[in-house]
Parts: sequence; structure tokens; C-alpha cells
Amino acid sequence: MRIGILTSGGDCPGINATIRGVCKTAINHYGMEVIGIHSGFQGLLTKDVESFTDKSLSGLLNLGGTMLGTSREKPFKKHGVVSDVDKPALIEKNVKELGLDCIVCIGGNGTQKTAAKLAARGLNIVSVPKTIDNDIWGTDFSFGFDSAVSIATDAIDRLHSTASSHKRVMVIEVMGHKAGWIALYSGMAGGGDVILIPELSYNIHNIGDTILNRLKRGKPYSIVVVAEGIQTDGRKRAAEYIAQEIEYETGIETRETVLGYIQRGGSPTPFDRNLSTRMGGHATELIAGARFGRMVTLKGNEISSAPLEEIAGKLKLVTEEHDLVVQGKRMGICFG
Amino acid sequence: MRIGILTSGGDCPGINATIRGVCKTAINHYGMEVIGIHSGFQGLLTKDVESFTDKSLSGLLNLGGTMLGTSREKPFKKHGVVSDVDKPALIEKNVKELGLDCIVCIGGNGTQKTAAKLAARGLNIVSVPKTIDNDIWGTDFSFGFDSAVSIATDAIDRLHSTASSHKRVMVIEVMGHKAGWIALYSGMAGGGDVILIPELSYNIHNIGDTILNRLKRGKPYSIVVVAEGIQTDGRKRAAEYIAQEIEYETGIETRETVLGYIQRGGSPTPFDRNLSTRMGGHATELIAGARFGRMVTLKGNEISSAPLEEIAGKLKLVTEEHDLVVQGKRMGICFG
Amino acid sequence: MRIGILTSGGDCPGINATIRGVCKTAINHYGMEVIGIHSGFQGLLTKDVESFTDKSLSGLLNLGGTMLGTSREKPFKKHGVVSDVDKPALIEKNVKELGLDCIVCIGGNGTQKTAAKLAARGLNIVSVPKTIDNDIWGTDFSFGFDSAVSIATDAIDRLHSTASSHKRVMVIEVMGHKAGWIALYSGMAGGGDVILIPELSYNIHNIGDTILNRLKRGKPYSIVVVAEGIQTDGRKRAAEYIAQEIEYETGIETRETVLGYIQRGGSPTPFDRNLSTRMGGHATELIAGARFGRMVTLKGNEISSAPLEEIAGKLKLVTEEHDLVVQGKRMGICFG
Amino acid sequence: MRIGILTSGGDCPGINATIRGVCKTAINHYGMEVIGIHSGFQGLLTKDVESFTDKSLSGLLNLGGTMLGTSREKPFKKHGVVSDVDKPALIEKNVKELGLDCIVCIGGNGTQKTAAKLAARGLNIVSVPKTIDNDIWGTDFSFGFDSAVSIATDAIDRLHSTASSHKRVMVIEVMGHKAGWIALYSGMAGGGDVILIPELSYNIHNIGDTILNRLKRGKPYSIVVVAEGIQTDGRKRAAEYIAQEIEYETGIETRETVLGYIQRGGSPTPFDRNLSTRMGGHATELIAGARFGRMVTLKGNEISSAPLEEIAGKLKLVTEEHDLVVQGKRMGICFG
Repeated sequence: MRIGILTSGGDCPGINATIRGVCKTAINHYGMEVIGIHSGFQGLLTKDVESFTDKSLSGLLNLGGTMLGTSREKPFKKHGVVSDVDKPALIEKNVKELGLDCIVCIGGNGTQKTAAKLAARGLNIVSVPKTIDNDIWGTDFSFGFDSAVSIATDAIDRLHSTASSHKRVMVIEVMGHKAGWIALYSGMAGGGDVILIPELSYNIHNIGDTILNRLKRGKPYSIVVVAEGIQTDGRKRAAEYIAQEIEYETGIETRETVLGYIQRGGSPTPFDRNLSTRMGGHATELIAGARFGRMVTLKGNEISSAPLEEIAGKLKLVTEEHDLVVQGKRMGICFG
Repeated sequence: MRIGILTSGGDCPGINATIRGVCKTAINHYGMEVIGIHSGFQGLLTKDVESFTDKSLSGLLNLGGTMLGTSREKPFKKHGVVSDVDKPALIEKNVKELGLDCIVCIGGNGTQKTAAKLAARGLNIVSVPKTIDNDIWGTDFSFGFDSAVSIATDAIDRLHSTASSHKRVMVIEVMGHKAGWIALYSGMAGGGDVILIPELSYNIHNIGDTILNRLKRGKPYSIVVVAEGIQTDGRKRAAEYIAQEIEYETGIETRETVLGYIQRGGSPTPFDRNLSTRMGGHATELIAGARFGRMVTLKGNEISSAPLEEIAGKLKLVTEEHDLVVQGKRMGICFG
Repeated sequence: MRIGILTSGGDCPGINATIRGVCKTAINHYGMEVIGIHSGFQGLLTKDVESFTDKSLSGLLNLGGTMLGTSREKPFKKHGVVSDVDKPALIEKNVKELGLDCIVCIGGNGTQKTAAKLAARGLNIVSVPKTIDNDIWGTDFSFGFDSAVSIATDAIDRLHSTASSHKRVMVIEVMGHKAGWIALYSGMAGGGDVILIPELSYNIHNIGDTILNRLKRGKPYSIVVVAEGIQTDGRKRAAEYIAQEIEYETGIETRETVLGYIQRGGSPTPFDRNLSTRMGGHATELIAGARFGRMVTLKGNEISSAPLEEIAGKLKLVTEEHDLVVQGKRMGICFG
Repeated sequence: MRIGILTSGGDCPGINATIRGVCKTAINHYGMEVIGIHSGFQGLLTKDVESFTDKSLSGLLNLGGTMLGTSREKPFKKHGVVSDVDKPALIEKNVKELGLDCIVCIGGNGTQKTAAKLAARGLNIVSVPKTIDNDIWGTDFSFGFDSAVSIATDAIDRLHSTASSHKRVMVIEVMGHKAGWIALYSGMAGGGDVILIPELSYNIHNIGDTILNRLKRGKPYSIVVVAEGIQTDGRKRAAEYIAQEIEYETGIETRETVLGYIQRGGSPTPFDRNLSTRMGGHATELIAGARFGRMVTLKGNEISSAPLEEIAGKLKLVTEEHDLVVQGKRMGICFG
């Protein structure tokens, strides 16, 4: 068998470890041939590929980013690297010409949608979920998330120094447009006093009261962790907006930090490396078993898979019943 | 209600975060009083205690070790801090005099046994599993494990530099007397070529072949990760023994490192902080619900609990069917 | 002897280690009494103090921030915690009432100015330079700088993942209003391709050419490190402005990150801990030798001191002749 | 001009950054050709070389180990990769055949000796000091040292958790056969209570008294940092010997850890990266100026150079007058 592998959408720690997991299992165990496709679906349109050997895989396990490169190319949309052509048809033609028996698509929600559509057209597809945001439906965790939480928590740890030394409120904005997973996990792990996520609405007076109550109890500083996607006035970034509202509400000096791109870079945590390895290996097993049209998943501690058509287009969001939210509230943390 | 809390056995990242989780939930949500007991069960024998307030809990979330101190005191064994007395009876008397409605015991396998025995005598006990070794029956993961794996993986990452620069075999010994969880997880995350754990027997010729095959494929260096509890000649440490055998078998210069105590120290990872917080909070909920004689557990992603008598005395070991072992073998890693 | 110690201005890794160095030397070696003054010069106005013992110093060596708290109180300016009083006179009165033979002032450029003025009025002052910006005249390095460079370099390392995966230009803004030390050191250590600092003017066409030349040589991504104080259009932050200009100039997708407050938080690096310890210890020696009105300095590898009146009001800036700039240019890095 | 570059002796963080510094300056600024020589002097005997381009240098700045490989080959000793030949003469012949105008030798004390001998025979040599031990004469610091101190300090930080939780003495052995620089710097930065180095003799009773005095002052735990080269009974490792003596002397439970090879692996600190870059760039400048037979040095903050014959065969040791020793003693730390 001859398989292709591509990585699409934003980069994320663990992609390279996943590529390694797919390839080592494919080459060593199943004797498959593996072709790396450059720059996501763009490389399928331009036939920009390379052949992988065991040697290509050295040093990949703990390397950040994606050695295949990535792009935002969406082959079912008009714009992109080629235009005025039927892009899905071109992909089918190229897959045939490249002699690929299956394509492994590593990517986020957008990639899963594209993968489902290509599968629906009859291409052999196996996909692996990849997102620091942890919002892909059907899997408890996706690799990259633990690494992003780790970076965000380290940043929150650092802000405690300044908050307590200056008796200030420090607001930190982490990634998460629609899902607040990073804010929830890093906020809890970093000792946030207020945690705001897009899924739960907030009342600025509650937040102010939480901070003023801390002041009364001899804690004249507070840490506020916000996801970038929470509701604001629509003009300012989440951190800036919340910082201004808190300063107005409490009269306490408040400063904001936007963590930004460093959340998605660098070496994956051991948790993410092992998750990547397992998911990559499982992707190859699905191919070996001719179980196409599926996305690899983590359910509890089990690696499994689910049909792409069940997953595509859905989002996994934090709910009020999530254990960390429930426990956090009992401990006195304000969620809005 | 008035509850006591103690930490027993070896120290481990996340104990303080657990204490914080228990106390914040108890004090803020349930209005309980919390008494900290010093030095494990020893403090119950000597009534060495302190009263906790919300202020006692500042800075605990990311602090390594245990702020209550710990000891190896086993109240159902003769030796220890007091002798010639009926120690279990003394504990019952002291618990009564201190007015404690329940004792939260945070500890490893030994602690769970003691907790089960005290519960069997009628004391109200809730326990939380704590071990970097991850070998407590009934819970998928215990806090401290992810932190230990993280430290061990970082060390393995570093050894790659020397292994590849000097074209050597580097053997690293990590903790795990009976269970090879740390070796398995850090070995896989660190890119180990050979991983040896107590649960799986090994053949030194297989190991030598793996290393020589790598040499033939242009990789004149290898990383070998061993748990301290693997079988040796009984005189040497695991790392030293295996290093000598490999050098004899392959003729390649081989060096060993014993990671030791640094595996159990320092700040917990975000994963462990959140696990600790959730487990601590759940322990308090069990108390509030008068569900005594139980140990808090993690099953999949759910925090739950199990009866102490079902857990005490059992060990959770790695099996050959564990997904990381299966995937690892398919990728060409030698497990013995 | 009885000495007071205060920390003023922005917080910075290594302040607590300096306090520890001053106090341990004072208490253990010279038998002095040490009084901690809270919230910088504000605590001298309100007599908000505590007595230090050997026990107060546990855990300080690697603790971020300042355990004494800090403020921006400038006693030679009108505004602040008290008004309508002669603040310098009030300080003199309070110092007398507290029985302090000397005040150790740990702070940045503003603090050195205040310290010089107090010394000029006849108060016994010894000061220690503290700034992550490294712009205090008279000392080669101040503690906090190596820690800030370390955090910034770690962030730049992470951005490489995204830059190379997405073939983008990544612009990162680090601290430094007037002095570009952090940008220079972290930019060089992080492999920046363009480094912009306030001391050296830039030409956006040169920057664009550097980036386009990299593209031609097969490197379709670049890292740009800018100090916050470089010249812009006066409306946008440095990172945002430069990112827009680069995108306009090169047509390559460009993203910006502002590192912000995390640069000043958390545990100091070993370099900074040892510098803090040595500077703290030396401050106490100056007091023991009655050498008042001086700031502790590092010159080469020697800890020494200089008269406060020589230092106050001056800024230490990067010059075009600095070895890192010269070497960087020879290696092809664009400094403007 | 056409220059060769080799790395010899133990690996060390910063070697690759130095190679990059040499090459980028040579290729971009001076238009030189650079040949990489594999496996230290061994590669000069076997003509095992590769040609460097700007592309070879990607990713080197923060990569641990040496991408050229290294060996312990000593061309002025009989044994080694070739025998029964005049090895120095063979090197001269090969250098001529390879058309090399100069060899850059990156290495430790042994390498500096070999470099001096080759220079004395008339070969054009420029050398760069490399050792985590920091014991090369003529330079204040060598790259690798700050990284090793950083790893050792991190390990000592972790041991504090266990020491204080268990009320134990923890002994940690770090590298340093003849010179105690790592023990001194990491011991001071890690808050060691006792620091033992080969240069200063110790009395076990003093050590015991220090530890027992801490116990009396309410600190029932201590951290002891020892260099591997301190005097022992000649049979046990330094850490094991000292731990036993302390336990015998004080009756307090004492545990040892040997840090080992992880001290020399992994990514260099920003300090070491910049030192490497500057030293590498300066080496190329020496070549451009035909200033051969010299080793690059750091004096204060200045990069300079010194004649190899002045350096070879000497060792830079810690003295009792070193500022960290003097300050440490005043703070109550026991140095023996």
C-alpha cells in the first residue's frame, strides 16, 4: 500500500509526532510506502510531495510545528492556490496519479469538514484531530491542547509575581474563539480567581464583587483568565475590554496581557507526544484494516475512531456541568 | 463538621494542590472546619495539628512536596514514633479528642491499606490516591505521575544530545519498583529505542539486536529506558547492569544515568494540578455526603470513588495489551 | 546596627533573592537587625514595616516578585499616598523614629534618583540596581535581565514553529522603552532575522529586503524582534506597526505578538539568583563599612559600587559598537 | 579562504551555536568556504568531512550536542582510530590535501593541548573553549557552563520538596572532577546549605554541625551539593560517601542523587547561545586577520583571544577568595 499524509490548518505541538507515529507504524510494521504532501490540501492540488523513509523521521517526536508545512487551503471553496478549476476533481485526479491508496489528513475542524467531503466523494480518507483549542467533536482530547495549557499556565504563574507585588488585577487572554477549554484548564491550573469563557455568560458586577471580596479578605490582587472569544463591546480585545471594566468596577489598578501565538509553538508535552504517537499509529491501523472515512478519537483512555460524517461540522464546547467548572465554583472561583 | 487531613508516604507533586482542593471546597462551600495533621499518621499519634484558614492556602497550588510533612509511620505495625501502645486505639482516642468527624488520607498503596484498616475499625475515612508510580488500583491515573513523566522525559530528551554526539548507547533508570508506568510513558515520549519494565521479561540478545540493527540503518546511538525494578543479577542497579550487558552484547560504548529523587520534586504539571484539585474537591463532597470508607478515583475523565476494601492491597500494573506497548512494538521499539 | 530595606518600582525576578542576600549577611555575619519596609517609599511615609528574622527568609531565593510589595510612590513628587506634607521631611522623621541606621533601596532608574536625593539630604542610603531592562548606568548587568531574556528567548523559540509551518513573518515585541537590551539579547539568542531597538534607526526597505532575500534563499519565513520603544507612527504598538509595514513591503503574511508582563514574573534564572545574592551581600558590606550614598554595581565579574550622584539620571543604552550588534551584522542579521 | 571546523571531547550545550557563529560569519561576511570535519580529530585522520552551506546551519542555534559528532581521539597519543602511523604528520598531509587554510578546534582542556601542539608544528589553528566544567584557563566563562548550572539548579530546586517534606538531608552530586564551578554556582543558586568542591578541603564535623544547627533553628532538612571530584574514601562516589558520613554524624536520614549526563545535554541557555555566537564569530575574525595559534576568550564582557601556548596545560580553579565563596560564607553556608 501507498499512503499520503498531509497537515492542514493552524500549526500545533504534536503534529510531527503524529506524522512519525503514522509513518513508523506504516513503514516498520505494515511495509507501506508513505508520501508526505506539502502545505496541506494545497500540496494535493499542486502535487508538491516527498517520499518518506525511516531516516526522515529522526528528531520529529519533540519538534514543534509541522515539517510538512500547512496552509488554509479549502478545496471546496473557490479562492486559494488554484482557481477556475474544479478543485475536488483535481485532487481525485492527483491522488490517482500519485498512486495513493489513502490520505491521512491531520487537522482541525475545518480539515475534518474537508476530509468528510472528500470521503463522501469516495476517496479513502483517515483523519486525525489536531487543535490546541480542544473543540473537535468526538474526541475527549486532541493533541496540542495539553501543550497549550502548559504554556498558558506557565504564563499565569508568572503573572502572580506582578499581581501580588503591585496589588493589581492582572487579566490574561488565552486562545479560544468559541470554546473556552484552554482558559478553563489553564485558569484552574494557574490559580485564576475569575475565569471567563465564551460558553458561560458573565456579569461584570459579580466579577467586581469577587475581586473586592478578595481585597476584604487581605488579598489585594487577583488573576483573571479570559478566552479570546468572550463577549465584549465588539471593538476591543477581550483582555483589554475586561481590564477596563474591572478597573471601572473596582477602582483597582488592572493590567492586561494577550498571550498570542506562543501558545501554539514549541515542543509538545509528554502527554501530547504519547497521544500523538497513539493516534498516529491508530490511523495506520485503520488504513491496514481498510476502515476509511473515519477520524481517530480518544474516549476515556481508549484510542478509537468515529465516522467522519458524524463529526464534521460539530463543535465540542464546555458546559456548566463540567467537573472543573463545578469544582471551581465550590472553591469560590468566579465563572461570570 | 470538622475534618482532619494528613499526607503519608513519599512526597509527590500535587499533594499541596490536593490539600488546597479539599480545604477550599470544605471551607468556602460547605462551611466545614479543617485541621491539618502533621507528618502523616505520626501526627495522629502525637496530636501534632494546626488549624487551616483560607489564608493558609495561598501559594499551595503549584508548590511541590507537602506542607503538612509526611512520614512512613504505619500505625498497624509495631515500630514507629510510639511503641508498646495500641496505636490504632490511640488514633481513635485522639480523633475523638480532636473532635474530627472524618480524616482525609492522601497517600500511596501503603496509606490506602492503613486507611482501609482504620475504616474497618469504624473511623470515618476518605482517601485520595497519591503516587508518582501510578500503581494504585482503582484509578486510571494518580496525581504526581504526569509530573514525574514530564521530568523523566525532559532528562531523556537531554540524553539524546550526548548519545548522538558520541555515538553511544545511553541507559537511563527511572522510578518504578513493581510497575513500569513511568518508564513506559517517558520512554515513549522521550523516543526510547528500548524500554524495559518489571512487568515484561526481556532477553538481552533482542536488546542487542535492536541496537545493532539501528547501527546498520545509520543510527549509531540508542536510548534505553529502564524501570528500577526490572530483573538484574541482584547486585547492581538496573541501569548499571543493563549498560554492562549491552556493552558486552554490542561492543558499543554504553553509559548509564540514574534519575533518582528529582523525579518526585518540584511544581506539578497543569495536568496534575487539575487532577489534584478535582480529587481534593471530590473528597470533600464524599464527606459532605457521609460516603466514608472510599478512595477518590479517576475513571476515563470522570472523578468518582470506590470502596477502600476493594482497593487496598492490590497493584495496578502495565500489561502487554496496553495501547502504548502495542503501538510501541509496531513502531519498532524493543520491550524486551 | 538596625537597617531598613525597601523595594520600589516595577517588580522583577531576583528582588527576593537580593533581600535574602542583604538579610542573611546582615543577620548571620554582622549581627544587624533588619526591618522590612512595605510598598517601597510609601511604607517609609506610613511606617508600614515588619521585623525580619532568619525564618522570614525561607523560600525567597527562587520566588518571583517582591515579598515586601512595591509602589510607584515618588517622595520628591507631590502626588502619592500622602499629600500636602513635606514628604522628604516625613521620611527623615520616620527613619529616626524607626531607629534605622541605613536604608537599602532596591529599585530601577527612578529609585536611584530618589535614593540619590535622600542621600544628598544626609540620610544613610545604599542602593541596589533592579531592572529587567538593564538600562541602569554604572552596572554592566542588573538582576532580572537574564530572566527576562530567558523568557523572551523561550517565546521566540516557540514562534519559529508557527513561522516555518505557515511560511510567515512573525513579529514579537519585547520590553524596552528607551533601551533595546532585551530585544538585542533575546533576538540574538532566539535566532531573530531582524532586530529593532530604540537606539538604532531603521529603514523599512532594508527590513523588507532582508526578508525577501531569505525567501529567495529558500527560507520563506522570518522572525522579527522589536523593542516596544522603537519609532512608529505614534498610534500603534511597535509590533503591530512593524507587522503592517512588513506585510505591505513584502506581501508575505505577517503576524504579531506582544509578550507583555510575563517577561517580569516568575523565578529568577540561576545567573540572576547569584547576581542578586552577591549584590545583596555587598550592600550589607557597604553598610558595615559605613560607605553610604553608593549603588552596588557589577563591572566585568567584580561586584563593586559607585556614588549615587554619578549614576542617578543617566541611562545605559546599546551602541552600534556593542559586540552582539557587530557580530550579528556580520552574520547577516538586519538591525534596521 | 577555506577553513575546517571540528568539535572534540565531551559534548556540551552551545557547540552547534558556535559552529553556526563561525560559519555564518565566514560565509556571509568574509565569503570563506567552510568544511565540517566529523568526529573531532578522528575526522582529520580519516578525511571524514562535509561541505557547509548557509542551509546546513538551520536549527543549530538551540540544538544540543554537536552535529559534527565528536570523539576522544588524541592525535599525539598512540591509541585511537589509526595506529602505527605518525598521526600528526597524517593530519598535516590531510589538511593540505583538503586545501584547508585554517582549522577551528572547538573543545575542552585536552583539545586545547592538541591544538597548541598542532599550532607549534606550524598548522594554522584557531580554537574555541568548550566545557560545562568552566575550568579552561584564560577565559572567565566557557559556553555550556551556564546551561549545566541551570540544569543542576533546577534539580536542586526539586530536591527541596523532598528534603522539607521528609525532614531529610539530600545530597546531590554534580559534575566537576578537579574544578568545583558547577557545584559552587548551582549550590549557591539552588540554596544549598553545604557546598563541597575539590579545591576546598572539608571537615565532616563542621558539616554535621551546620546541619544540626539548622535543626535547632527549626529547619529539620538540609541540601548538600558536592562536586564529583571531592575527596572520599576512594571506593564510593562522592554523593554516596558524603551521605553516609552525614547520616553517621547527625543521625538524620540522608539520601543521595547523582545528576550525571543530563547536565551536558539539551538546548543551551540564552546566555550560552550568545556567548557561543560571539565566540564563533570572533574565531572567524581571528582567521580573517591571520591571527593563528590563539584561543578565543571572554574577559569581563569582552571577547578577545590569547596564545594557545599560554593556555594549554593549565586549569582554572575556584579559590577561597572567589566572591561567591566569600559571600556564601558570610550568609552561613558551609564550604567544608
